Amino acid sequence: MQYPKTPLNKVVRGNNRARYDQKTVFDILDAGFVGFVSYNYEEKAMSIPMAYARLGESVYLHGSRKNRMLTSLLQQQDASMTVMHLDGLVLARSGFHHSVNYRSVTLFGPLTEITDSDEKNTVLKAIVDQMIPDRYESLRPMNDKERNATLVVELKIASASAKVRDVGVLDEKEDMDYPVWAGVIPIKQVALPPIADENLSETLPTPAHITDYYEKHRI
Amino acid sequence: MQYPKTPLNKVVRGNNRARYDQKTVFDILDAGFVGFVSYNYEEKAMSIPMAYARLGESVYLHGSRKNRMLTSLLQQQDASMTVMHLDGLVLARSGFHHSVNYRSVTLFGPLTEITDSDEKNTVLKAIVDQMIPDRYESLRPMNDKERNATLVVELKIASASAKVRDVGVLDEKEDMDYPVWAGVIPIKQVALPPIADENLSETLPTPAHITDYYEKHRI
Repeated sequence: MQYPKTPLNKVVRGNNRARYDQKTVFDILDAGFVGFVSYNYEEKAMSIPMAYARLGESVYLHGSRKNRMLTSLLQQQDASMTVMHLDGLVLARSGFHHSVNYRSVTLFGPLTEITDSDEKNTVLKAIVDQMIPDRYESLRPMNDKERNATLVVELKIASASAKVRDVGVLDEKEDMDYPVWAGVIPIKQVALPPIADENLSETLPTPAHITDYYEKHRI
Repeated sequence: MQYPKTPLNKVVRGNNRARYDQKTVFDILDAGFVGFVSYNYEEKAMSIPMAYARLGESVYLHGSRKNRMLTSLLQQQDASMTVMHLDGLVLARSGFHHSVNYRSVTLFGPLTEITDSDEKNTVLKAIVDQMIPDRYESLRPMNDKERNATLVVELKIASASAKVRDVGVLDEKEDMDYPVWAGVIPIKQVALPPIADENLSETLPTPAHITDYYEKHRI
């Protein structure tokens, strides 16, 4: 499935790096859990990093009912979110051709508050599990007070575009013999060894979802 | 120096984590080189990741003269940029108290195009060196064609706020004996070994600015 190109999501600059297929968009979303959600506050555009979960063709946000941004967003009715993963520094022979390797996605869509308790449970589980898979079911279950204090918002992905750069340096032909080091320094977000809470019982084993996460994300 | 709190930059949620001092704001900016710049396109707020440099009390952006975003931004006269560093997953005993450790800054200010050639040179050098220190002077020098094709924009930091979370899990007292692993998984953005361009002369030594960067950012 391809997202249609409209003036809103069409990538104008670097359009050779643009991708509109749903698989690429979902893969980039699924590789992270923090997105930059944009909104207008007193007619000024700003963005705030927020945790999200993707379920089907929507992403879900949550926050306190007192969250200025989420309540503003709901009044706006639709929103945009951007996610980026930095994959490398692209160090060319000229400053002009310096770049980065990355995967990014910007999506747009209408917002709806989720009020049904069961649906809220599903979304809040997904938000924890997007951060670290399989964790939610081991936690102390959510209570009504917590669920009622939490605003859950669906952002349906109506439109999206991804950009991916994953190649080496692209220099001018006449610069190829210029005596400067050129290449790529790969960048990766990694996990360091988990640090148990100091109040944790020493008899409690480290569960598989923690060791799995660490083994998957360590260098 | 403290940035004044105004309705625009005042942190409403989690205000115990808010910082308004210039040193914290600058430290967070100086630890990165990619910011999420927000703008309105057809009255919809969106944000795009862009490279920046901080010089004094401004950050500088650049792009092609054909860049829709930069040209839109200049028409808007002011803008907002957000930078975030993710430092850890905070895994509490309840879903409600899950969080992340992070350093983020959001800044606001007026935009001005930089047209003076010497000032453009200074800024474009700073943008390369913000990505990887001390690199610019080794590069093939910029030519007039490149300089003229590049739009350079100053975002003067008129207002800013930072948020920092750098503590462990904060659980409800009554949850402390719940039998689930709790703690922090530190997250770090690291460099992997540099990969030389395949066309690079084998007699060219790897310069200090590359090995220094790798040694500083490797795990």
